[in-house]
Amino acid sequence: MTPTRHDRASAERVVLGHGGGGELMNKLIREHVLGPLLNDLLSPLDDGAVLPQPNRDLVFTTDSYVVTPLEFPGGDIGRLAVAGTVNDLAVMGAVPTALSLALILEEGLPFDVLDRIMASIASTAKEAGVVIVTGDTKVIERRVMADRAGRSVNDGLFINTAGVGTLRGDARLDLSRAQPGDAILINGAIADHGLAVMSTRSGIEFETELRSDAAPLNHLLAKLFESGVDVKFLRDATRGGLAGVLADISETCGLTIEIEEASVPLTPTAHHAAEMLGLDPLTCANEGKVVCVVADGDADRALDALRADRLGRQAVRIGSISDVQPPLVELRTRVGGKRVVQRPYGEELPRIC
Amino acid sequence: MTPTRHDRASAERVVLGHGGGGELMNKLIREHVLGPLLNDLLSPLDDGAVLPQPNRDLVFTTDSYVVTPLEFPGGDIGRLAVAGTVNDLAVMGAVPTALSLALILEEGLPFDVLDRIMASIASTAKEAGVVIVTGDTKVIERRVMADRAGRSVNDGLFINTAGVGTLRGDARLDLSRAQPGDAILINGAIADHGLAVMSTRSGIEFETELRSDAAPLNHLLAKLFESGVDVKFLRDATRGGLAGVLADISETCGLTIEIEEASVPLTPTAHHAAEMLGLDPLTCANEGKVVCVVADGDADRALDALRADRLGRQAVRIGSISDVQPPLVELRTRVGGKRVVQRPYGEELPRIC
Repeated sequence: MTPTRHDRASAERVVLGHGGGGELMNKLIREHVLGPLLNDLLSPLDDGAVLPQPNRDLVFTTDSYVVTPLEFPGGDIGRLAVAGTVNDLAVMGAVPTALSLALILEEGLPFDVLDRIMASIASTAKEAGVVIVTGDTKVIERRVMADRAGRSVNDGLFINTAGVGTLRGDARLDLSRAQPGDAILINGAIADHGLAVMSTRSGIEFETELRSDAAPLNHLLAKLFESGVDVKFLRDATRGGLAGVLADISETCGLTIEIEEASVPLTPTAHHAAEMLGLDPLTCANEGKVVCVVADGDADRALDALRADRLGRQAVRIGSISDVQPPLVELRTRVGGKRVVQRPYGEELPRIC
Repeated sequence: MTPTRHDRASAERVVLGHGGGGELMNKLIREHVLGPLLNDLLSPLDDGAVLPQPNRDLVFTTDSYVVTPLEFPGGDIGRLAVAGTVNDLAVMGAVPTALSLALILEEGLPFDVLDRIMASIASTAKEAGVVIVTGDTKVIERRVMADRAGRSVNDGLFINTAGVGTLRGDARLDLSRAQPGDAILINGAIADHGLAVMSTRSGIEFETELRSDAAPLNHLLAKLFESGVDVKFLRDATRGGLAGVLADISETCGLTIEIEEASVPLTPTAHHAAEMLGLDPLTCANEGKVVCVVADGDADRALDALRADRLGRQAVRIGSISDVQPPLVELRTRVGGKRVVQRPYGEELPRIC
C-alpha cells in the first residue's frame, strides 16, 4: 500500500494525535522515546518506578499537565497536577510523601490566574496530605496560537509534578496474578473530567453542570488496602479513559475482559454531553477514577471498603476477567449485543490533562 | 512616585524578565509561588529538598528546560536536562541515583530532532551514571511565535527532569559554617554556555568556536568529597551566572565576597563574544561550573582534587570571604579598582536553559 501524504507527514513529525493516550501515542513512545533509554527500572512502563531501598522501597513518578483551559468546572490545572501525581503513586501501591512542582509560565499570564492556581495546588496538596518540597519556575515568550476553530488560544501555564512515596508493605500489585473470574471494579461515574473540559472549551452548556472529577485518591486506596483485600491491580483511568485502561489490562495479562454496559456508572448529564459532543464516554478522560482488579471472592469486601470513602460512594463491579481467546475487551450492551472496546487511536480529547 | 505604564503591566502579568534568574525572578517566586506552599522542607529553597529516611537521607529535585534553540554548539536541551538535574543533586551533596523525564512536544517537531535529543539524553545519563526510570509525554498545539527581532520561532520541545539521590554521609554543606578567610573556588572558565547559546541565536560567529560547557559534575564532586576536604558549600552557576551565585552566598551568610577579576577564568573567545554581544560574563549562564566554599587551609587540597577530574582541570581560587560590612560582592579589577557585583535584575539571557 502506498503511504498517503498524511502518513508521510505523520512519519516525519509529531502530530497532535501523538498526545491523545491512544495507539498513536504508544507508537511515539515505543519508536522514539524508549529505545535509547531502556533499562530494567523503566521497562515495566508503569505509572511510576520502584526504586529498591534498604527499608521500604521508594516509588518515583512524573507527569506534565498541559490542559486547556487552565480553569474548568470542578477543577483547574493546579488541582490536576497535584491529584494526578498523587494518584500515580497511590495506584502503584505507594503512600505519597513529597511532590516537586515545576512551572513553565508564559509571558502575559495574569497574576490573578497564577495566584488562584497556586491556591488550588496548596489546597489539593493539603487534601491529599502531601507536601511540595522542591520546585522550579521558567518563563517562555508569549505565544500566538489558534485552535482548530481559528480562535486565539493563550493558555499560559504548563505544570510538571514529580512525586516520591514509600511502597506499602501490603501492596502486591501484579497483573500476572490476574485470573479468569477476577472482578473489575470502579469507584464511580466515568467521563466527567473529559466532558467538563470539552464542554467548557466548546462553549456548550448543559442543564446540570458537568464538573471534573479531579481528586486525590490516596485516602480512598488506603482504605482499600487496609481492608485486607488482596488487590491485584490498580490504575487511574485518565487519558484514553476506561477503554484505555481495560485494553492495557487485557493486553498485559493476555485475558479477555467482559464489561456490562449497564453497570458502568455514567450520569445522565455526562451521557447527554457525550452524545452532543459526539464522544464515547468509555474513551473520555477521568481524573478521579480508579479501576481495581480483585479476586471474585474479594469483590464485595473491596466495594465496601471503597464505599466507606467520600470518593468511592458509587463504587461498583463493572465486569470480570475471562479466559476467552483471543484476549479482547468486550462490552455487553444494554440491548444484549456485544461490541469490542478499543483503545482510542489518536486524539479524542487533546490537552485534556 | 507614580507607577509608569510598564510598572503597572509588570504588576499584573508575567513578563519575560521574571524568568531570567535575577531580582525580578526572586520577586515572582516570593510573592506568587511560595506563599501558598511554604513548609519546613521547601523553605530552604535549595537546589533540591532533603527527605529524611531511616538510613541515608534522600535528596529530591526538579528542573524544567526551555532553552532555544534546542541544539547549540557543545550541547542540546537533552544534555542540559540530564546534566542540570544531576548537578542539582550533586551540589546538594547527594549521589544521583534516578531521574524522571517528562517531554512536552510541540506538534510539528521533526522526529529526527527528537531522535537526536533522545540519544543525547541517553548518552549524558550514561556519562553521569544515572538511569531514567520513569517518564511522561504530552503533545501541545503548534505555536506561532515571534522573537524580539520578529523572526518566527518554533522550538517545539520542553523537558522536565526530576531526580532523586542519596545524601552522602560525608556531606556537611551549610553556609552558616562559612567564615571570613574561606576560599571561593570554581572548576573552570565561566560564561561559555550562555555565550554559545546567545551567539547561535544571534547568528554571530567567532574565530574559535564557543561551546556550551554543559556537563554532569557528579563525578568531579565525588572526587572533591572523597579527598576528605571539608566542603562548606557548593552551587552550580546556571541562570544568573557567577554573579547570581556569589550574591546568594553573600546574602545568606551576611559576609562580603572579594573576587579578583584576573583570577576568574574566561577564554579569549568568550571575552570577545561577551563584548560583541554587550554582556557581562559574570552574569552569563554556565551549565558545567560549580562554585565551592572551603576553609582557607583546605583550598590547595580541594583544587588538587578538582584538577584530578577532566571537568576540573582549570580549577582555581577566585577569591575569599571577608567580614567587611555591609555584605557585598566586590570585584577587584585588573587595573586595581573595585566594583560591586550585583545579581542581574531581569532577563539578560531569556530561555538559556
